[in-house]
Amino acid sequence: MTRFTTTALVRFAHVDAAGIVFYPRYFEMLNGAVEDWCAQGLGADFRALHDIRGIGVPTVGLEAEFHSPSRLGDMLDIALVPLHVGRSSCRLELTFSCGGETRLIARVTLVCTDLAAMRSTPWPDDIRARMTGTAPVAA
Amino acid sequence: MTRFTTTALVRFAHVDAAGIVFYPRYFEMLNGAVEDWCAQGLGADFRALHDIRGIGVPTVGLEAEFHSPSRLGDMLDIALVPLHVGRSSCRLELTFSCGGETRLIARVTLVCTDLAAMRSTPWPDDIRARMTGTAPVAA
Amino acid sequence: MTRFTTTALVRFAHVDAAGIVFYPRYFEMLNGAVEDWCAQGLGADFRALHDIRGIGVPTVGLEAEFHSPSRLGDMLDIALVPLHVGRSSCRLELTFSCGGETRLIARVTLVCTDLAAMRSTPWPDDIRARMTGTAPVAA
Amino acid sequence: MTRFTTTALVRFAHVDAAGIVFYPRYFEMLNGAVEDWCAQGLGADFRALHDIRGIGVPTVGLEAEFHSPSRLGDMLDIALVPLHVGRSSCRLELTFSCGGETRLIARVTLVCTDLAAMRSTPWPDDIRARMTGTAPVAA
Repeated sequence: MTRFTTTALVRFAHVDAAGIVFYPRYFEMLNGAVEDWCAQGLGADFRALHDIRGIGVPTVGLEAEFHSPSRLGDMLDIALVPLHVGRSSCRLELTFSCGGETRLIARVTLVCTDLAAMRSTPWPDDIRARMTGTAPVAA
Repeated sequence: MTRFTTTALVRFAHVDAAGIVFYPRYFEMLNGAVEDWCAQGLGADFRALHDIRGIGVPTVGLEAEFHSPSRLGDMLDIALVPLHVGRSSCRLELTFSCGGETRLIARVTLVCTDLAAMRSTPWPDDIRARMTGTAPVAA
Repeated sequence: MTRFTTTALVRFAHVDAAGIVFYPRYFEMLNGAVEDWCAQGLGADFRALHDIRGIGVPTVGLEAEFHSPSRLGDMLDIALVPLHVGRSSCRLELTFSCGGETRLIARVTLVCTDLAAMRSTPWPDDIRARMTGTAPVAA
Repeated sequence: MTRFTTTALVRFAHVDAAGIVFYPRYFEMLNGAVEDWCAQGLGADFRALHDIRGIGVPTVGLEAEFHSPSRLGDMLDIALVPLHVGRSSCRLELTFSCGGETRLIARVTLVCTDLAAMRSTPWPDDIRARMTGTAPVAA
């Protein structure tokens, strides 16, 4: 499966009283990286997913280890790798690093969800093909 | 070890475009529950910890399973149980439920940290004693 | 018109690297105070407004002066006074204080909005009556 | 004085249950635009300001009018113009637009603050010169 990379800048809004990223803010960044992956890697941006296809991708499971703190102004490199793509779910690993130092490794499980029924639904074929790397994203 | 309970109301600020809690917001609530536990259960509020004792409790590990979505206006019951108290860390389980339905179970590992040195430090005796339930919180 | 009061605790999630409330977090608290006012003062909680009546109350104007910083652990007293109730809008003043010291005064203009049409709509009579203090909230 | 421009993408984390930007999130974006201006326009990034010069720029006043809602996926153009630069404060106007449509106009007053004393202090000469457009930012 294909590795996707993006970046996130540590903003003043992300840091706590100790001057380091408050960990719930990492998950906002992580969700932003998943959005970038959907838009740029899978050819299916969140607006199109939600408003046109009626699909959401809620997170049902999450694990994270925080290796080293991040500070205001750090430019974080985020690498996303799909570990497993199931019928209606996928498991992703995201590694946040800065200057080669690992800050955070997280694994999340997302479920392809029919927003009207609020029930899981199989991945659309085009999205699955790009997740598994068997189809390119149209230029 | 002693179970601690608190509550959190699902606010407009917590929900996403699908009308359910955006999961990074759960971790803000979770951190709030840990703050309540420190203040009410351990007799050591975050301000005193940070400003007077120079101690922070950053989260170094986290796992969560999201069982069922929460909606605007839900009053969530949060139960916190210490699973393990080490020399300078602790592992907590927090269960969020509403009307008896489990919404989220999370396990977090916190590290007692000397904020000046940004290095782990043993739990102060009074805090450890209350964490392990061997000393009461003064009235 | 009737004054409404509520409180908000300054959480770790609210403070910045200088240890004081990051001002966008005040507006999350302010929105929470408006939610409490709707639920407790107007007898119309946000969930009922949104899901049953199809009404939202987006903010279209805002002014704020920040008088004095707030710190972790401060319990803020919030007083809400309707300054003006129009056909489909209202103007509110909210004062945040702690121990009698003013921290923030904000004035916001909300518009009663038909969420399906995304267009302004007159306040329902029961809500207007309670806003203007001509009808009590049922016990 | 010199106009500065930057952009912000409307993320899933920014929108509310009605699918439009929850207004406190605009102020996180606004603060991010001020950070970009300091780093790129004034040659003084927030980390250097805070950690090296011991200066913060808290917001002491704010006015905003929300003209039109923004939705998930909108790329917002943000234009920042200094309206007034005083001895130790400045007043900025920020206009958020998308595809030429104005979404939000905000005016904020920032105060140059000595973080150790938590007291206002005159702008450093180099920063003032760049704010007022009388000195270029070094390449």
